[in-house]
Amino acid sequence: MKLAISGKGGVGKTTIASTLVRIFAEDHPRVFAIDADPDACLAQGVGIERQVAQEHRPVIELKEIIDAKNAGGGAFFTLNPDVDEILEEYCLKKDNINFLRMGGLKKGGEACYCKENSFLNSVVNSLLLDRNDVVILDMGAGIEHLSRGTARGVDAMLVVVEPSLNSVGTALQVKKMSEDLGINRVYFIGNKVRTEKEKEFLSSKLPQDLLLGIIPYDDEAVDTAMEDGVAISPQGIIYKTLKEIKKRLEEEVGNRDI
Amino acid sequence: MKLAISGKGGVGKTTIASTLVRIFAEDHPRVFAIDADPDACLAQGVGIERQVAQEHRPVIELKEIIDAKNAGGGAFFTLNPDVDEILEEYCLKKDNINFLRMGGLKKGGEACYCKENSFLNSVVNSLLLDRNDVVILDMGAGIEHLSRGTARGVDAMLVVVEPSLNSVGTALQVKKMSEDLGINRVYFIGNKVRTEKEKEFLSSKLPQDLLLGIIPYDDEAVDTAMEDGVAISPQGIIYKTLKEIKKRLEEEVGNRDI
Repeated sequence: MKLAISGKGGVGKTTIASTLVRIFAEDHPRVFAIDADPDACLAQGVGIERQVAQEHRPVIELKEIIDAKNAGGGAFFTLNPDVDEILEEYCLKKDNINFLRMGGLKKGGEACYCKENSFLNSVVNSLLLDRNDVVILDMGAGIEHLSRGTARGVDAMLVVVEPSLNSVGTALQVKKMSEDLGINRVYFIGNKVRTEKEKEFLSSKLPQDLLLGIIPYDDEAVDTAMEDGVAISPQGIIYKTLKEIKKRLEEEVGNRDI
Repeated sequence: MKLAISGKGGVGKTTIASTLVRIFAEDHPRVFAIDADPDACLAQGVGIERQVAQEHRPVIELKEIIDAKNAGGGAFFTLNPDVDEILEEYCLKKDNINFLRMGGLKKGGEACYCKENSFLNSVVNSLLLDRNDVVILDMGAGIEHLSRGTARGVDAMLVVVEPSLNSVGTALQVKKMSEDLGINRVYFIGNKVRTEKEKEFLSSKLPQDLLLGIIPYDDEAVDTAMEDGVAISPQGIIYKTLKEIKKRLEEEVGNRDI
């Protein structure tokens, strides 16, 4: 099962992506956690130290190796099944979690991340998965990864939404653009919901059958933001709500043929 | 004076950018408010209706006109002083505010926003300003606009920071990349600060002389997020703190020769 997490900046994509990775890793032998945002912090959320993650080699380096091998062989290449083996070298492992990051930091004015996005798409599509493997992609904020088609080929797009008009606007735009990409399963996850009014707001703005769940606002995520390490504890309401959402995902996405 | 507003997703860039635009427009005859994020909502923050802004022609169309004119004339072009006149057609006006947006929405998989970012840079650099004109650019979340160099040429980069390690990490990265671009004045604005502990956290993590101000958390911004229209009232603490920050900007940036 391959899932991408998207939504407007600040809605909680990385918190939700990293927590889902941990929950799936409880009963799946291999979960790939892929950081597709040059500014994201997925590693910390799954318990890998910030510094260690930042120094780890990004997947884009593999492209340079392939390019060097294929020099003179034309502009196109296909990742062959061996990629799985090579990819092992790019994974930072923590228990059942295999962490990968798309690209490294660049200098100001150096270049866009088009190459990284395009190569990540090839890698995700080439990953040969066992039936129980899970891939979770934490996308960049906003909609450019969709106009680029980075997550083309995932089984479902999960859009995180907080109770604001702007966040809902982005979410509906993500749905439309995901469908352009041929991703037919797009679901919404409500987040940071404080009041009954906010819950009703989200329920009224989003298609009911696609709203996988609503995560209540919890000071836990704010209070731990100034500290290093995993912010979300398995005892808190965020983790518990996401466990329910994970069950629905397995029912709706997991049992179908990929 | 040309200013760019950046920072991690969700820190409050658009709220701060739009409020600064309104404050500068109180005593400056012409303020350009430029939305440089394909997913942003700067227009609503300055009182322009969502629908009207979305249907307004984006600046990138001007490039297509120039390209058509120069067909066969080589790959390079320079915007000449006439650009100011032509740009008038791309501005949505509201009192002293001239709103411009970088690019339109695209389909999923259609293209990146590299062309839009690069052209926006030319436009911002070509704007001939009177001494009292102000340009405020609301950048996309994260750091890719810096690796692209979209805001190269502004007089100052304002980085919005909330009390979290991730937000501080992005802010310091923005500072470094801005300096790569030759933007030597980089300032920080603390936002959504609830407690004395959070205030101390930001003060301890950021260079004191570059921290222009700290905006307290205010339910106003959350409570109005589900409604259309301008969220920040001139009577609230967010507006008042930004008025002080605007004064400092005029002292530190405005009085120097551009």
